[in-house]
This record gives sequence, C-alpha cells and structure tokens, in this order.
Amino acid sequence: MSNQPAQPRDAAAKPARERVVIIGSGFGGLFAARKLARTDVDVTIIAKTSHHLFQPLLYQVATGVLSQGEIAPATREILRRQKNAQVLLGDVTKIDVEAKTVTSQTPVGEAVTSYDTLVVAAGAGQSYFGNDHFSEFAPGMKSIDDALELRGRIFGAFEMAEVLEDPEEIQQWLTFVVVGAGPTGVEMAGQIAELAHSTLKKDFRRIDPTKARVLLLDAAPSVLPPFGAKLGKKAQTQLERMGVEVQLDVKVVNVDEDGLDVIDPDGSPRRIESRTKVWAAGVQASPLGKQLAEQTGAETDRAGRVMVEPDCTLPGHPEIFVIGDMMSLKRYPGVAQVAMQQGKYAGKTIANRLKGGAPLPEFEYFDKGSMATVSRFHAVAKINDKIQLSGFFAWLAWLGVHIVYLIGFKNRITTLMHWTVTFIGRGRSERAVTDQQVVARMALHREKLANEAERAEEEARNVAS
Amino acid sequence: MSNQPAQPRDAAAKPARERVVIIGSGFGGLFAARKLARTDVDVTIIAKTSHHLFQPLLYQVATGVLSQGEIAPATREILRRQKNAQVLLGDVTKIDVEAKTVTSQTPVGEAVTSYDTLVVAAGAGQSYFGNDHFSEFAPGMKSIDDALELRGRIFGAFEMAEVLEDPEEIQQWLTFVVVGAGPTGVEMAGQIAELAHSTLKKDFRRIDPTKARVLLLDAAPSVLPPFGAKLGKKAQTQLERMGVEVQLDVKVVNVDEDGLDVIDPDGSPRRIESRTKVWAAGVQASPLGKQLAEQTGAETDRAGRVMVEPDCTLPGHPEIFVIGDMMSLKRYPGVAQVAMQQGKYAGKTIANRLKGGAPLPEFEYFDKGSMATVSRFHAVAKINDKIQLSGFFAWLAWLGVHIVYLIGFKNRITTLMHWTVTFIGRGRSERAVTDQQVVARMALHREKLANEAERAEEEARNVAS
Repeated sequence: MSNQPAQPRDAAAKPARERVVIIGSGFGGLFAARKLARTDVDVTIIAKTSHHLFQPLLYQVATGVLSQGEIAPATREILRRQKNAQVLLGDVTKIDVEAKTVTSQTPVGEAVTSYDTLVVAAGAGQSYFGNDHFSEFAPGMKSIDDALELRGRIFGAFEMAEVLEDPEEIQQWLTFVVVGAGPTGVEMAGQIAELAHSTLKKDFRRIDPTKARVLLLDAAPSVLPPFGAKLGKKAQTQLERMGVEVQLDVKVVNVDEDGLDVIDPDGSPRRIESRTKVWAAGVQASPLGKQLAEQTGAETDRAGRVMVEPDCTLPGHPEIFVIGDMMSLKRYPGVAQVAMQQGKYAGKTIANRLKGGAPLPEFEYFDKGSMATVSRFHAVAKINDKIQLSGFFAWLAWLGVHIVYLIGFKNRITTLMHWTVTFIGRGRSERAVTDQQVVARMALHREKLANEAERAEEEARNVAS
Repeated sequence: MSNQPAQPRDAAAKPARERVVIIGSGFGGLFAARKLARTDVDVTIIAKTSHHLFQPLLYQVATGVLSQGEIAPATREILRRQKNAQVLLGDVTKIDVEAKTVTSQTPVGEAVTSYDTLVVAAGAGQSYFGNDHFSEFAPGMKSIDDALELRGRIFGAFEMAEVLEDPEEIQQWLTFVVVGAGPTGVEMAGQIAELAHSTLKKDFRRIDPTKARVLLLDAAPSVLPPFGAKLGKKAQTQLERMGVEVQLDVKVVNVDEDGLDVIDPDGSPRRIESRTKVWAAGVQASPLGKQLAEQTGAETDRAGRVMVEPDCTLPGHPEIFVIGDMMSLKRYPGVAQVAMQQGKYAGKTIANRLKGGAPLPEFEYFDKGSMATVSRFHAVAKINDKIQLSGFFAWLAWLGVHIVYLIGFKNRITTLMHWTVTFIGRGRSERAVTDQQVVARMALHREKLANEAERAEEEARNVAS
C-alpha cells in the first residue's frame, strides 16, 4: 500500500502539491503541522499513537490526578479544521533518504509514503543505559501505557500491603523508589509522597500509609541539575520536608522484582527492598536518528540524538528537518519548549521556501524558563539566571503556564476541576485501574508464593534425604 | 491467612463484635455497608475490584465521554470515614454456609473470613447464552476493562478504515453492531451513531465517518421491553432518525471476527459483515448464587439468580442476605435501584436485629421509574404507568437524576464538564486508548493478512501442481 498525498479517494486528479511528511505527533510534529495550516502543501503526520501526548503532565495520570484523555487529545481532533493535514496511524521503521520515502508499519502492512520535505520528530524513549531488563520492574514515564501501568502498581502496592501479614513484606510493598532526580522524577516522588502521607492516610484499616517510604535516587550529586544549585537545593529541602528520602551520588546497578542494588557514594554496595520502582533516569532518541546518521554521515551523540545544522536540517539534506528530543544542537535541553519552537521554525522555513523568500535566520531557542512542581503549592521555577522562584509563587507560575498551554488542547476545565480536587481537597479523581491489572497482579503474587513454597519443600526434602 | 474482623494489628484485644461480611462493592454491597455506618458491627467488604462501578454510565466510558475514574471511585475512598468498615481485595470463590466462612483469592493466597451475618451482592456478568466464545469478538458491558476495550475497538475501527483501500473491507470496519436492545444496548447504539455521524464527521480525510452503519439487533420484537410498547416505539423512532438500523425479531446464531450470522424473522439466515460488535443481550448471576442454592436447597432461575425470602434472606438462613442482580424476588428488575434499596434494607435489618427490635416489614421495591438516553437531548422515562416521558424533558429528567446520584460519588463537576463538552460541543474528551491496544490491533491485522496471503499462495501452488 502506498499513501500518496492527502487526497480523498474521489479527488484523485488534483494538481500535485508539495508533500510534507511529519513523523511523530508530539510537540514538535504537531507544531510543525499547525504552522503549515494556511500554506499550499499536503501535510501527512505519521504517528504510532492516535493521540498527542502532553508529556509534562504524565506523572499526574500515573498518580491518579488526571485521566488519560485530559493529557492525550486525539491528534485528528486537534487538526480537524486543518484541511491540508491528514493523520496516518503507523510505526515508521525506515526512512530512505535517497528515494525520499518513509516506510511505516500500518494495520494493513507496510506503507511507503513519498515526501518532498520530511520533518522527523519521533522523540525519545526511556533509556536504561544498556540494562533493558530493568524496564519490567521499573517502568519509564513516556507513554499513556507507562502511566496507567504505574498507576496500577502504585495504588496496587497499598492494596497488597493491606492484605499481607509479614511486617517486612508489608514494608517492601510500602517502599517506593524513583530513579532519576530530573523534573519527572522530582514530580513523581513528590506526588507519591502526597498520596501516601495525605490522600490515602485514612483509606486503610490495617496498614498506615503514612509509614510508606518514598526514595528519590540519582547518580548525580544534585536534584534538578539544569535548575542550578540554589533551586535544586530548595527542591530537595521541600521534598525532604514532605518525607521523601533524597539519596544523591547513588548509582543503581541492578533492579529486580523485589528491589534495587545500588552503590553508595563511598563505593559500598547496598540493597533497597522495594516493590514499586519508577525509572525517570535517562532518555534515548528514536532509532530513526541512527538510521538517518548512517545514511547521510551525520553524527549522533551518546543518547542517539542527531547533530543538526543551525536551521534544524540534516547536514547535506535541507529537505529533512530533525527536531525535538531527537536532535542535538547547541546543548539545547530535551524539553517541550525546544520541540515546539523547532516545530514552528520548521513549518515557517518550509512555507518560506515555497514562497521563495530569503532564507530565515538560524534557529534560536528562546528559553522561557523551566519549572517543576514539588508538591501542591510548592514549585521551583527558573526564568533566567536572575529570576529564580521557589515555593508558592513558583507554583502559581507553574499553574498559570500550564493552564495557558492546555488551552488549545481542550479539557482545560475538567483538568482545572481535577486539580481543584487534588490541590484543595488532597483527593485523587482518577484512581481507577483495570481488573486486568488487579487480577493479574494478584495471580502473579500467588504464583510466586506457591513457587517459593515448592522450592522450600524441595530443599527440605533434599536436606532430609 | 485469615482475615478476622476489621481490627488494626495494634488493637487485637478489642471485645468481639458482630461480624458482617459483604461480598461485592456494587450498589447493593456499598449501600448495605453505608447503612451500617453508625452501628456497633465490624463490616468487611470483599470485592475483586478496588473500585465501586457506576455501571449505568459505563457506555459513556466506552464511547469516550467520561473517564474511568469518573464512574469508578475507589471503594475505600467512599468508605474512608466509616471507621467500622474495611475493604479487602479478593475474589470470593467459596461460601461455606455451615462453617459461616467466606473463602477468597487474595494476592497472598486463599483467605478465609468468618462472618456472623453475610450479605452476598456479587452481581451478574454478561451472558452469552452458552456461547462464551462470542465474548472475544463481542465484548460485554460489565466492567471498566470492557469499556476501555470497547473504546479501543470503536475508535480503532475508524483508524483502520482510514488506512484501508478495499471498499468492502472499509465498510466492514465501519459497521457497528450492538446486540440487545435494552437500556445499555440502546444507549451504546445511540452513542456510536452520534460519534460517527457528528463527533468524528470532520476528523478523517479518506473515509466519511457519516457513512458508518450502526445496527441494533434484538431477538425480541421491541426496543426497551420493560418501558412498554409506547416508549419503546418512541425510542426506536428516535434511534432510526439518528441513522441506527433497528432490527428486531432477529436471532444471533454466531459471532466471529468479521461479523455475525443471524436468523431473520422469516427464518432465513443472513450474514452481517462487521468488525466491531458489542454484546448487551443478557446477564448471568454470579456463580456464588448456584453455590448457595446447592448448600441450602434454595432455588435458582435460568439466569442463576437465587430465589430469596421476602426479607431478602436465603430460605432457612436469616443470617445470609442475597441482594441485587444475584437474587430473584417478585420479578423485580435487575437494576441499580433494586440493588440500592435492598442494600439499605439489609443494613437496616441487621441494625434492627442488633437492637432486638420487632422484625421489619418485608422488602418492598419502590420503583422510582426507569430511563434511558437515546441521544443528546433525547431520552425516554417511565415514572409509572401513567407518567411516561420522551424527548427533551425526559432527557432533562435523566440529567437531573444522574447528577443527584453522582453526588456522593465525587467527580460530579468534571462529569458535568465532560457532559457539557459532549452535549453542547458534540465532542469527546476521553478518546485516548493505550498504545498496547493500537499496536496489538495493528499487529494482529497484519498477521491475519500475512496468513491469508500464505494460504492463497499455497492454494495457488496446489492448483499448479
């Protein structure tokens, strides 16, 4: 099957227009598409999910504040009125730079889509630094699936603890470890601590959720390194005030079902018993980056990001833009803002070329600042080197910025309501997990116990004989 | 492990109190528990889900109007302030009427819980009338899992159609069949028609969602039989006005991946090609009903419901209440209202016995009426034989009643907002499906195509040789 331009079946004879193919429906892809709204091109977005994902709020889905729909509007709904854009569901496996085609796995098999201009915005996945087997025990925070899985694990851990008898086992289920003290890790640790120490406080009869331990580990010596030492320290203090145990300079060497093996700053190994682990430690650019590099001789960095030209194109290939978390340029950080601005820039450049205008100036990232919420009413915000906020006013700034960004992404009113429930009432509106998650977890644990019992019996038999 | 009364571990020496065990966290179980709030008993709810489910709105989760959290608040959150109640996650497999114990599968293995009084409110599941293999192709509408699965299938069907080329295959994906014209079936058919014919109208570029077919089948000769002929006819007319094809007196004899085989009213067989089927045709009481009957000699009806005494207890066992969808009494319907009222009645009876009061009068169901929404702004409502409404005022009544009931179940404001989005804006806030659903569906379909190609090749080879 080939997906030639965005023509309805009944209008095959339209004049050929510039075909812009965008890979990915994240911030970069979406903003590039929108910028092309009023231009004479055919835009095709190929993405493996049918939704855009407002990734910076994913931690709130994982911890029961928001529903998945609130941060994942359907891409086609966002682009409904943009008649020159079509969305195709497909997992892109190959880019052929010579033939100018993109191959994707769609529900009906391989589809080959030709492009005149290509915008590669396939983002980055979680990186386990070569230890991919960690992922089973410590899910990352990259997709709706991740968030719902973690929601099931976090709320499920308290349910498990409630039915157990052995104090050690109970503590194992009531210990939560977040690996990685960047914004996502800090936000997750803060949310889990709030859950345990206030939301769930009175929900159980046998366990005391306030006795849950929440650990935040990082191999680096500080929390939120990009925010600078001062704000990092403030965030750390606030986390510790909430009962989060911040352990820095600690290297994770293994993760298994029951816990983690770490190396302490003094080089000594230590075991942490914990049933629920969250991985927020590293990212790895989409493998499409490496593919592009191999075909064009472009360079990639350790995280698989493609080094791009100052105009966000691939060296020697002005028709290919690589933007967002997949590219490396002037040490710009892997944040939504960069992707959005590069998306807009790519769109603008494409439109400008069509008009035959003079080349646009190089891409310059305008850093509007970064922020991370630590707890309700408490955030850190770095606007620039001079303006740095922490505490309530930083939190208000966080709230304002997110409300503004969510406009245009629908659902802003329900999101506000869910936030009201959480921030004022300390409640969680979205605790529901599927039976599959609950039943599967129960069955798994029973099986494990049965296996252990069998092994113990066998050992006893061996000793006896 | 044994779950003896709801005592915290640090208070083992309290005086023994009446132990009330409730099986199920649906309307019956929850209302029974709440009625016992201010009594001197220990209440243990054993349920296999950690949430209560507002089942009458499940169809809105399946069709992207509401999030799962909005209709499935955590049971322990609802009962947070009721100190004499504890919630245990467990799937009850056995009731021993003689020993007065309940055995459940918990995450840590079998738990045996003793009771003085037992309230069995385990509800009913979908019935495929002996054809359980239908369930894979036509999920029921009984749990959050069902609703999210159907959401993935319904929205996914349009995505599939968008990438396909073959017109027949496209129509197969754009044909939706709902089996069963009771309230759930009517509401599902109405919602899918609204989705296709208005919400998604402008979301696609290659297919025309308004050409989707929505069929509502029933073996009975009328829509919404319990509402009477007049309202049933009105509902049918409204459905047909929305483009739903209502086919009555039609018997489903087989369901497979690509469609259904049915027998028409004149006895002739017919094939309906459809990729997305919903089963809303029948219910089967929890198997615990049969167990109780076998142990006590009580009778069960064809749907496995236990015939109970006029005070909702098991014959000869005044200490066992069987309530809601699991019981059969005076032809009361299997609706939320009956379960709620019986739950309250059971709670009141238990409290009254403790006080040593005179026996309460027999349970009498007070029918507040039934209602079903057909489309936005259009419902049918039967208050009693005299007062029957249809159209906008019935819809307003539906809205009012549901808002009132949702109070006490939290989330009412966000629910109202999501309804505003849907009823005023025709939008859907909760369209997000998991990658797993999308990717799994894509892979499955590719595999199927590959198998077909292989088979065709083999056949060609056989012909050639």
